[in-house]
Amino acid sequence: MPGEFELIQRFFHQPTSHTELGAGDDAALIRPRPGMQLAISTDMLVEGRHFFAGADPFLLGWKAAAVNISDMAAMGAEPRWITLAIALPAADEAWIDLLARGFRDCCEAYVVDWVGGDTTRGPLNLCPTIFGELPAGEAIRRDGARHGDDIWISGWPGMAALGLAHLRDGLELVSGWQESCVERLHRPMPRVALGIKLRGLASAMLDVSDGMLGDLSHILERSGVGAVLEETSLPIAPLLAACRRTEHAMSALLSGGDDYELLFTVPREQRGQIEALARKLELPLHRIGRILDKPGLWLQRGNGVAESVEALGFDHFGAS
Amino acid sequence: MPGEFELIQRFFHQPTSHTELGAGDDAALIRPRPGMQLAISTDMLVEGRHFFAGADPFLLGWKAAAVNISDMAAMGAEPRWITLAIALPAADEAWIDLLARGFRDCCEAYVVDWVGGDTTRGPLNLCPTIFGELPAGEAIRRDGARHGDDIWISGWPGMAALGLAHLRDGLELVSGWQESCVERLHRPMPRVALGIKLRGLASAMLDVSDGMLGDLSHILERSGVGAVLEETSLPIAPLLAACRRTEHAMSALLSGGDDYELLFTVPREQRGQIEALARKLELPLHRIGRILDKPGLWLQRGNGVAESVEALGFDHFGAS
Repeated sequence: MPGEFELIQRFFHQPTSHTELGAGDDAALIRPRPGMQLAISTDMLVEGRHFFAGADPFLLGWKAAAVNISDMAAMGAEPRWITLAIALPAADEAWIDLLARGFRDCCEAYVVDWVGGDTTRGPLNLCPTIFGELPAGEAIRRDGARHGDDIWISGWPGMAALGLAHLRDGLELVSGWQESCVERLHRPMPRVALGIKLRGLASAMLDVSDGMLGDLSHILERSGVGAVLEETSLPIAPLLAACRRTEHAMSALLSGGDDYELLFTVPREQRGQIEALARKLELPLHRIGRILDKPGLWLQRGNGVAESVEALGFDHFGAS
Repeated sequence: MPGEFELIQRFFHQPTSHTELGAGDDAALIRPRPGMQLAISTDMLVEGRHFFAGADPFLLGWKAAAVNISDMAAMGAEPRWITLAIALPAADEAWIDLLARGFRDCCEAYVVDWVGGDTTRGPLNLCPTIFGELPAGEAIRRDGARHGDDIWISGWPGMAALGLAHLRDGLELVSGWQESCVERLHRPMPRVALGIKLRGLASAMLDVSDGMLGDLSHILERSGVGAVLEETSLPIAPLLAACRRTEHAMSALLSGGDDYELLFTVPREQRGQIEALARKLELPLHRIGRILDKPGLWLQRGNGVAESVEALGFDHFGAS
């Protein structure tokens, strides 16, 4: 009766630090701290769509955890528990051991308890579900952006897209930058500390998984507002250094996914606090535009002229 | 930028009754009631393994919710919230509308809020994750069975296995029973009310998804005990009526999965309370054996002789 996958389930029995009952029963048992809300999210990863066939299992495990942890960062929640359901075409113990190590390493880096999951035979599919805590009422949603708010983005958006274009399409990258871009693609570092610090400051937030413009438009739609981005404020310098082609750099920046940086809006009175936060976290935070009261999304060029983004068509790296 | 699957995401935006923020943001927000533990479980369903290719999408949606809700029943938890991540080979709106209806109908039947999920392109895969509440410390785990406890099973175990054998292998079933068996396979009814009532009574419990013997052995292993089942106490009558072949009926009963009945152990002093509970819930509860202090699993035949189950090989309907 016990099959090959039962053996593999053992990889899922991980030590936990803040869980009442981990893997091995019909359900895991957790106990949120008093006064806390729970944030819940699930992101499924499919071969050929979210990762290459033949992907390194360690990196794949890391990424599966990271993209889910990033959803917690995007709410201002503290990631606390995670499950992993997985369909595998065959029971390859060495492969799943590496996958489990990557997943666990990412969980440990963010102090997330891996509390169980499911294993079955089928086309390769990873489905983590993540649970985070945050004080009730303090979640940073997508619908709170208001006219006049500054628009901010964290870190180095676009590098993962250059890494993907390098691996998939042979885009040439300057030596030294190549590794950095591929590393960002393979091993995203969710901005959990930043997300938590932005509670009470940011009016709206999400993590950039599909591209800055597309994800920003989610905030605009949900908040019923528009926005203008200032071209001269965009953090394009590292991308230009990496690929030396303005068009590619701009597309990666505006339409590239997979960086899992945080995109957020903040009332302009808090500008100083965001700048102080950047210094404290040693993480660049770029003020790239502002929220408008009328719907639409514009890019203000260096010459002062604002063009509608829809007409620009930055979709080279867009989600297909 | 918005793709066909974004359209489909709209099916996932379901009204909720006890959720602070449902689908559409980076995470759903829930707030467990004070003093409650959360039970978490995830069960992935893959085409060709958990359901036939070409399965009815409404029934598939129902079953995806039901098997996850059943994991809550198996802990004595009240199912409260559920997510659904889904990979689809194509964006067939009519198909997913029916799937969503089946999933939602099952959720509504059990007062579970569907709080979000994920949609992506890939080989068909459904991955719900379920969250239930229960008073802290009252979960019914697998490791609490003790020497002398009675072993109980709810309902009509084995009927789903006969339904599966009928559909897959052409096993002939008596007219009238055929529909009942297929219905049990397609539309399992998790025993949530029973699970909750068994808090403080059952010493160990799980839901039978892989077959009674295999699942019982999980309780025995985790509890460090053995068991004997009494052949004359097994609820085989409806199975015999349905298929009229003792061997098939016995295999379906002991090794058939998919019924999602509850298998549980109770100290024998509580026997009267379990019988009263059966009357109250109008649900047959069968006392089928008892827990032994020595490891192993035996079947006591009508003639009083106990045979080791391992030697019997009831695996016709076992999970492959």
